[in-house]
Amino acid sequence: MQHKIPVGVLGATGMVGQQYIKLLASHPWFKVAYVAASLRSAGMPYKQAINTRWCMDIAIPNNVADLIVEDATDVQKALGKCRFVFSALEMESKEAIQALEASYAAAAMPVVSNTSAHRHTPDVPMLIPEVNARHLEILPAQQKHNGWNNGFIVAKPNCSLQSYVAPLYALMREGFSIQKVMVTTLQALSGAGYPGVSALDVVDNVVPFISGEEEKTQEEPLKILGEIENEKFVYRKDISISAQCTRVPVLDGHLACVSVLFGPAKPTREQIIKIWKNFRAAPQELDLPFAPKQPIIYLDQENRPQPRQDRLNDKGMAVTVGRLRPCPVLDYKFAALSHNTIRGAAGGGILNAELLVAKGYIR
Amino acid sequence: MQHKIPVGVLGATGMVGQQYIKLLASHPWFKVAYVAASLRSAGMPYKQAINTRWCMDIAIPNNVADLIVEDATDVQKALGKCRFVFSALEMESKEAIQALEASYAAAAMPVVSNTSAHRHTPDVPMLIPEVNARHLEILPAQQKHNGWNNGFIVAKPNCSLQSYVAPLYALMREGFSIQKVMVTTLQALSGAGYPGVSALDVVDNVVPFISGEEEKTQEEPLKILGEIENEKFVYRKDISISAQCTRVPVLDGHLACVSVLFGPAKPTREQIIKIWKNFRAAPQELDLPFAPKQPIIYLDQENRPQPRQDRLNDKGMAVTVGRLRPCPVLDYKFAALSHNTIRGAAGGGILNAELLVAKGYIR
Amino acid sequence: MQHKIPVGVLGATGMVGQQYIKLLASHPWFKVAYVAASLRSAGMPYKQAINTRWCMDIAIPNNVADLIVEDATDVQKALGKCRFVFSALEMESKEAIQALEASYAAAAMPVVSNTSAHRHTPDVPMLIPEVNARHLEILPAQQKHNGWNNGFIVAKPNCSLQSYVAPLYALMREGFSIQKVMVTTLQALSGAGYPGVSALDVVDNVVPFISGEEEKTQEEPLKILGEIENEKFVYRKDISISAQCTRVPVLDGHLACVSVLFGPAKPTREQIIKIWKNFRAAPQELDLPFAPKQPIIYLDQENRPQPRQDRLNDKGMAVTVGRLRPCPVLDYKFAALSHNTIRGAAGGGILNAELLVAKGYIR
Amino acid sequence: MQHKIPVGVLGATGMVGQQYIKLLASHPWFKVAYVAASLRSAGMPYKQAINTRWCMDIAIPNNVADLIVEDATDVQKALGKCRFVFSALEMESKEAIQALEASYAAAAMPVVSNTSAHRHTPDVPMLIPEVNARHLEILPAQQKHNGWNNGFIVAKPNCSLQSYVAPLYALMREGFSIQKVMVTTLQALSGAGYPGVSALDVVDNVVPFISGEEEKTQEEPLKILGEIENEKFVYRKDISISAQCTRVPVLDGHLACVSVLFGPAKPTREQIIKIWKNFRAAPQELDLPFAPKQPIIYLDQENRPQPRQDRLNDKGMAVTVGRLRPCPVLDYKFAALSHNTIRGAAGGGILNAELLVAKGYIR
Repeated sequence: MQHKIPVGVLGATGMVGQQYIKLLASHPWFKVAYVAASLRSAGMPYKQAINTRWCMDIAIPNNVADLIVEDATDVQKALGKCRFVFSALEMESKEAIQALEASYAAAAMPVVSNTSAHRHTPDVPMLIPEVNARHLEILPAQQKHNGWNNGFIVAKPNCSLQSYVAPLYALMREGFSIQKVMVTTLQALSGAGYPGVSALDVVDNVVPFISGEEEKTQEEPLKILGEIENEKFVYRKDISISAQCTRVPVLDGHLACVSVLFGPAKPTREQIIKIWKNFRAAPQELDLPFAPKQPIIYLDQENRPQPRQDRLNDKGMAVTVGRLRPCPVLDYKFAALSHNTIRGAAGGGILNAELLVAKGYIR
Repeated sequence: MQHKIPVGVLGATGMVGQQYIKLLASHPWFKVAYVAASLRSAGMPYKQAINTRWCMDIAIPNNVADLIVEDATDVQKALGKCRFVFSALEMESKEAIQALEASYAAAAMPVVSNTSAHRHTPDVPMLIPEVNARHLEILPAQQKHNGWNNGFIVAKPNCSLQSYVAPLYALMREGFSIQKVMVTTLQALSGAGYPGVSALDVVDNVVPFISGEEEKTQEEPLKILGEIENEKFVYRKDISISAQCTRVPVLDGHLACVSVLFGPAKPTREQIIKIWKNFRAAPQELDLPFAPKQPIIYLDQENRPQPRQDRLNDKGMAVTVGRLRPCPVLDYKFAALSHNTIRGAAGGGILNAELLVAKGYIR
Repeated sequence: MQHKIPVGVLGATGMVGQQYIKLLASHPWFKVAYVAASLRSAGMPYKQAINTRWCMDIAIPNNVADLIVEDATDVQKALGKCRFVFSALEMESKEAIQALEASYAAAAMPVVSNTSAHRHTPDVPMLIPEVNARHLEILPAQQKHNGWNNGFIVAKPNCSLQSYVAPLYALMREGFSIQKVMVTTLQALSGAGYPGVSALDVVDNVVPFISGEEEKTQEEPLKILGEIENEKFVYRKDISISAQCTRVPVLDGHLACVSVLFGPAKPTREQIIKIWKNFRAAPQELDLPFAPKQPIIYLDQENRPQPRQDRLNDKGMAVTVGRLRPCPVLDYKFAALSHNTIRGAAGGGILNAELLVAKGYIR
Repeated sequence: MQHKIPVGVLGATGMVGQQYIKLLASHPWFKVAYVAASLRSAGMPYKQAINTRWCMDIAIPNNVADLIVEDATDVQKALGKCRFVFSALEMESKEAIQALEASYAAAAMPVVSNTSAHRHTPDVPMLIPEVNARHLEILPAQQKHNGWNNGFIVAKPNCSLQSYVAPLYALMREGFSIQKVMVTTLQALSGAGYPGVSALDVVDNVVPFISGEEEKTQEEPLKILGEIENEKFVYRKDISISAQCTRVPVLDGHLACVSVLFGPAKPTREQIIKIWKNFRAAPQELDLPFAPKQPIIYLDQENRPQPRQDRLNDKGMAVTVGRLRPCPVLDYKFAALSHNTIRGAAGGGILNAELLVAKGYIR
């Protein structure tokens, strides 16, 4: 235990913060050594601060239960206690989160963020390790721009797009350009946090709207799939994405119904499935602890993927795809599934941190 | 009561048959005078044949409860007892239903069918009265082809497309051609009948597949929106539709997330909404009893339509639309909802029959 | 319309307040002429104050939509505008509601309350019109105690006990004393208001606890079934009730599994069912508009009552009972169902008001 | 692997059969070496026979996937291939299962049964290893009565009573007699198998009836808690149990709301909780692989146990109890939860087999 890297969790009492604490409970590289939240919780042991709000399906890990919760806005408290922080901050404004995450970075504390605050900051990478691990190369420029020494910020994208960006990227990497993407998501309740969605809204019902979700689903992939030019990210202009996001009474696991137009080269159905099955990238090559062995699992059954059946594939870190078939309007359509609170939140953040360690950005 | 038209229901013990009996309970023009089902039920009073399978939320109407159920395959039994039949037949094969419906027509008994058997028969109209009432003009040719005197067959389309075909047609009628349509449906459980979907499949789950549903959703509109040439229907070739159909834990009400490409003329958002709000067609002009006053209801709230909130609009006969917004891939996207067992099944069949009476095809 | 009694709704923007407005939309005796809520809503037209929170399945009635919402704590505003008020107040403390309801009564404004504030006030009747209409006789004493002239307070009991108190009372009235009652409730989501229960708590789950509910379920019937002595209510001491209350993913309709011990006289199963089927009381004799024709409906099917199938029996005002069978521990057990937001809330309050009018307490 | 005991699974393609195969996938003592089902599946490899019906959340274990499914009615096929069989037979009648299980026993093949067929056979123990391990002492008499040499039959009780029989027994063992028990169960969908309950019956609904379940819940504990006299079981006559069984939309985990009357000695609340927390019995003393470390887990939170949160405690083999409080009618009431397909079915059967091995009945 003494050789594990001590890590901090900002926003440790929220849903995503709890997920981090759960998923890090037996992590081979990291141990939670620092927890911070709002002033209201500060000064109390974690188990007392969280009280009845703990909603993970394991007990609070012993080493975290007695940690004193610190005020997340007091950056100095974290120094010396952890090597980097996972940010699951929930604050009154995006600007407040941006400023606070930057304060940690300025204090030489790398920030592996789950928030949307810096996703579109021009020199902050928005990372899916299987897709754009090379985007970490911008970090020296980010530090230079801000005058930071050892701190930096790395963001991760929204949970709603995790199911289809890796499958599309896998095809792009093999030379098949993507021109247009239509996606309708059927998103799980846990994406709205707790208490989140009222039961009265989803018993015998679905809701064809999630605030802000379609914009994220359409725009974030254009940065993730983009390039670095002149020390900042340039978004793809040759891909258009249209998203319709709905809420369904599923606990975990976002399902996406996707149609895609390739061009000019068109893969065959067999080529696509083969590319997906064989897809491996940086996390697999580096054998990162949270990396799924096979990042894209293709199922042949006609009625899969399904959230409850497939969300925990490879501990919730794999994307499961199925029903690849021709699309009468674009080229192909398929269904894709990703666990929104594991791959789409804390698990994805942990994989980002593992990549940063493996690549030497966190030492 | 003595002046109402006596009607028959074939398949009267099934889910759709029960819906017909419920919806016709106080119909101003029609009264159920004849019920037929499989040989197993034949000879028993309806209330005894249906026993515990009655699952409507009203009691069995008195005038039907004591009707003796006849064998649906014995066409002679119906003669003299009813003026026409609603067909909700469930048989072992499509061919068997085709043949039986044709037998009724041959016996001078018009068939207003809810089945898929004759939907693609070249001289059988597949009717949405607000869209293609003029397709009834093929009936004399249908009778001529088959040598039928007063009998004929009219089909209705699948429930999955009712939510978006009328809204698209309303725009076409105003001169805005439709080129491409992408639709993802979130379909209700009642579409699968009873017992239908296992609860184990849809608690904490959705299923991205419904057998045969995508094909129907893609192909049927091309006939509905098509023309009569040389005494048969010619399908649209200038419109392509791509459907992804999913099953969600909703009791009634199919929701569709739709994107559409117009061309060459493009309506503005305001034009579209105005066209929808003002849309009236044959059922409204003829003031048919089951016609919704406003066939297309547009809601401004950002999170509507929702199945539980909107499925019963205008007694389940109106289509409710919302969230019209630009689509980054095609032109516009929107959400649309239709009640699958009312407008999409028995209610739609009744409206078809009302149109046939008003137009003089049933006398 | 001009001869209807003008009524006020306190707490008009909450769930129960909305229910009152919906159920009174076409009431033959009453019209909503006054709406009051918290200071936050005061001064706005109702439709603006309620905005997106309106969650009834009808549109806001026209005559209410434009009423200006007044501050409920300002009793003077109501005077002259309505003859009595329905109280669905939600305030920070029980004491605050008690004081405010008393202020209305002191201002000569009768209060027909849905709150729990005065349920155990010794001279306030807690009314189920079919059970204890005679308890209204305490009102002159209540007025005397408080020095009120024309105002008074009438309470109604909690929704959780509506399903079984009338069936038990019906048997008591016929001479069968009740000694012990065990009840386990499966209660609907709407009982917790909106947003109320988080969807994350009831998808693939039930919760064996509802704060305060078991105490109400056990204690309130002892007053309802009690007597007036010396100008106050004396609770039954010869009946013990034990309740276990659970929350289940049902929208509306509280189901109760009940066991009962009689003594010394024991009815037969046939006697019980006959008594229930024949039970009529003051609301039926007075032919009150909201009175169910048959207050207790007994179903013979072995798997009924069920919330979705039976909650709307007689417009949600009847209790539906089934599965009467011997109990190996007490004497008999049965299942009982009542609509919690109609009979158990606003509908029950309206029936109370109708009784007050019919009995001349409201003029 | 070569030293594990080869076991057979009868009814291997059903839900419970699949559970056995899943739970035995990495069992330290047993390996599945023989699978049998109906004639329809016989002759095919298991993976082919089960095809799309496999609904466990792991893949079919490799060593089972290729086993040839045999005809379960052909006892000879099993001989030499396995040391004993788990029976999860589903046949047209109870008598057929009784006869077939007896045939296996007669062929010297011990039967560890999950069926209800022999639960009330006078010399067949109905086993909960923590409660009545000593009931195995009847097996020599069972063999003598039937003329069997090494074969015998052991039954397990219904899933609906697993949550409360061990907690009650724990108190009885400490000298507190139980006189009366009232129980209302909220039972999970998986108890009805697949497809089992229609989704249309449990969306926005619960059902207050499960065929045959109340009788089992009331009668089986009287044998489990009974004694052997004259080589057969004598049922308790001094305990009465009354059950009301309901179906709720929960995937797994039966919840019971229980009230109990002690006498004459009454434990304090603290005594009860202490007894439960300290309760250990034969499976724990023998350190059986499937034994929960702590068979009865008591939770202090006021809103627990809950099915989704607590069903998997100690791998689904522990009973979770909470909300112990005085009962106004009997003495105490509490809520109890048990996983119906693990502890209540295959997991319970495996624990029975482990006990038989540890006690030397299976060698």
